[in-house]
Amino acid sequence: MTKTRLEAFSDGVLAIAITLLVIELRPPEVHQGERLADALWAQWPSYLAYLVSFLTIGVIWLNHHRIFEQVARVDGPLLLLNLHLLLWTALIPFPTAVVAEHLGGTGETAQTAAALYCGVLLLTSLAFGGLFAWITHDDRLLHRPPPAGVVRAARLRFMVGLVVYAAALALSWLSAPLALGLCGLMALYYAFDQASVPAAEPSDQQLTGPSA
Amino acid sequence: MTKTRLEAFSDGVLAIAITLLVIELRPPEVHQGERLADALWAQWPSYLAYLVSFLTIGVIWLNHHRIFEQVARVDGPLLLLNLHLLLWTALIPFPTAVVAEHLGGTGETAQTAAALYCGVLLLTSLAFGGLFAWITHDDRLLHRPPPAGVVRAARLRFMVGLVVYAAALALSWLSAPLALGLCGLMALYYAFDQASVPAAEPSDQQLTGPSA
Amino acid sequence: MTKTRLEAFSDGVLAIAITLLVIELRPPEVHQGERLADALWAQWPSYLAYLVSFLTIGVIWLNHHRIFEQVARVDGPLLLLNLHLLLWTALIPFPTAVVAEHLGGTGETAQTAAALYCGVLLLTSLAFGGLFAWITHDDRLLHRPPPAGVVRAARLRFMVGLVVYAAALALSWLSAPLALGLCGLMALYYAFDQASVPAAEPSDQQLTGPSA
Amino acid sequence: MTKTRLEAFSDGVLAIAITLLVIELRPPEVHQGERLADALWAQWPSYLAYLVSFLTIGVIWLNHHRIFEQVARVDGPLLLLNLHLLLWTALIPFPTAVVAEHLGGTGETAQTAAALYCGVLLLTSLAFGGLFAWITHDDRLLHRPPPAGVVRAARLRFMVGLVVYAAALALSWLSAPLALGLCGLMALYYAFDQASVPAAEPSDQQLTGPSA
Repeated sequence: MTKTRLEAFSDGVLAIAITLLVIELRPPEVHQGERLADALWAQWPSYLAYLVSFLTIGVIWLNHHRIFEQVARVDGPLLLLNLHLLLWTALIPFPTAVVAEHLGGTGETAQTAAALYCGVLLLTSLAFGGLFAWITHDDRLLHRPPPAGVVRAARLRFMVGLVVYAAALALSWLSAPLALGLCGLMALYYAFDQASVPAAEPSDQQLTGPSA
Repeated sequence: MTKTRLEAFSDGVLAIAITLLVIELRPPEVHQGERLADALWAQWPSYLAYLVSFLTIGVIWLNHHRIFEQVARVDGPLLLLNLHLLLWTALIPFPTAVVAEHLGGTGETAQTAAALYCGVLLLTSLAFGGLFAWITHDDRLLHRPPPAGVVRAARLRFMVGLVVYAAALALSWLSAPLALGLCGLMALYYAFDQASVPAAEPSDQQLTGPSA
Repeated sequence: MTKTRLEAFSDGVLAIAITLLVIELRPPEVHQGERLADALWAQWPSYLAYLVSFLTIGVIWLNHHRIFEQVARVDGPLLLLNLHLLLWTALIPFPTAVVAEHLGGTGETAQTAAALYCGVLLLTSLAFGGLFAWITHDDRLLHRPPPAGVVRAARLRFMVGLVVYAAALALSWLSAPLALGLCGLMALYYAFDQASVPAAEPSDQQLTGPSA
Repeated sequence: MTKTRLEAFSDGVLAIAITLLVIELRPPEVHQGERLADALWAQWPSYLAYLVSFLTIGVIWLNHHRIFEQVARVDGPLLLLNLHLLLWTALIPFPTAVVAEHLGGTGETAQTAAALYCGVLLLTSLAFGGLFAWITHDDRLLHRPPPAGVVRAARLRFMVGLVVYAAALALSWLSAPLALGLCGLMALYYAFDQASVPAAEPSDQQLTGPSA
């Protein structure tokens, strides 16, 4: 089971999930005497949900990419755990649509929508943690054993994610928009954390040897 | 006709089909005085259908991947039989949507929905069997002749699939949810069967020679 | 401008267009006292349209694939002509949806739906012919000059397509289902024509040299 | 972080966004005594919007492709700026749908629809400019320093885009269809500008060294 095709399939699912988000953005109906501009503004929860979900799936792709650079061998459990991660990630457009439709509502409706959203992100985060734990539980699947500090730092990043998504889930009952905003901040943190990675070796060299 | 582009196209179709499943999950309408949480729970057939179809297409990808590792040459019939498999696999979101909408119904409605679902999976399974039979009917398309035991075991796995999907089809008239559950168990069996495959050679080596 | 990325983008668009066809297949509404099985049968134009369009896009992929095996260099006009082909191919789900909804209608409705469908396939065929003409108008873009007989045979196949799609367009006014059926036969002819191509060289060798 | 997977993910998102445009084209409803042909003609804003958006995303892909041929190394900011470009590009189907539905309207409705469309293209253009500026701000990420004239010409092309999209945005309040037409002309200009690029080296050679 080659790593190349696993990456290609994962990239495909992630690229499709991130692009499908847009079909939840629907042209608003404009009633007699209403302005289209007002109708477009009234859809703000849709835009917020698109933005947060786009960033979240984008960051999942970045992290997936970074982890699989270290992977040299693919075994059965890795395939299943990767499929499990894709199951939750590919589901994200659904809570995104629910939030887009109900975040502007009141009381239970907005709370439940936000809780569903944060809950799916929490489960996605757990699925990613499980995949990462399997990859790093011994050195059998890796190009070379990573420095202990690197693995520890990556585990810490996963823990931060779990705690923040759980906090966002709890926050849903206080303020649905704030819960969504916290998920967005989490994605931004991961994104800028990635941005600090230095430039990789030229791609030509990566064809002849594993990247460090 | 290179194998690489055949795999890329198949991966694309499978990745899209598996990700399109989510667009059948629609935010529920919430009527006056109704709770969103209740409306979400009432959609359980959708979630079950998403889960079973995701696992099924995921397992089709895993098996497709495993078989094509052995393939060295691509001929015309192989292209057509592969397209035939994709025809049925890409159709799966349709019976999934029918089941999602009608599994909670009564009598004929739920039975027909489940029968349609199991019938499409049975035809998909037949299409995969035909592809596999062509690939292994002589050694012309393979890197090297596989041990007879391996081919026999793979044929047995296909037979199990055909029998179970036919049984699920029959079961549709007794209990539609049980029929769907049986399809889910079948996918789980294939998934864990894949998980027992040992780690492949490092991907670097696979670039220089066919995998065993 | 490398050929690899052109093929990857084209494969992506074709794989998505072929898989998007399924979202035109909607679960039928079942009214009080109606059977789901009857409602499903009543949707036969949708299934016919899915089948014909799936075959047509599948065959476009096969032919695209076969032609680009001969291509060694990609220039600007080739990029534009390829994008032009994708423009019409990616449009196919639209006339498919129109046919699915209106082929069962009467008189002008069914005729117009079939004419739209055949017209888009005719334009797709013309776009493909233009791409092919550019690729073969001199030997600059090819690995090696193909035998004159091969190019002549391929040109003949394109001409057959243009004539048949034009005939199907004219047939739309006599019988809409027959016009659709003729498009389906055309796709089948192309498909089985492809099936007669002998097995290619092992993929390992294709990495080191152009295929014949 | 390898360049190959970045290109594959970007190609995926662009291929999906360009193909998703078609699902905004819906079969028209035909009322009693109405002709399907008339109902199809009445949807002309949808076809115009499809055409302009297809060309625009196609040209984004062509330009993305051309720029990344020069890139040898991928760093963190490049990843984020690329994701930012994809965020706006993947959004294009939304203003396309708004324009398709409201361009045929009157007054504020048509103006707002066109302004939204031009505004999103302007932001997409800015995002692409940011990506390009980062890639060329020093030579660290490139295979070799490009001639100063080439970079200057490319910067000029970006400036032209910004000015034209800003002009189209302003034009929205005078004539919504003209504003859309100007965006279409811009895409055509970029497309034919690409067509003037001479044939690349044979792809076999590109595997052994960076393209010039």
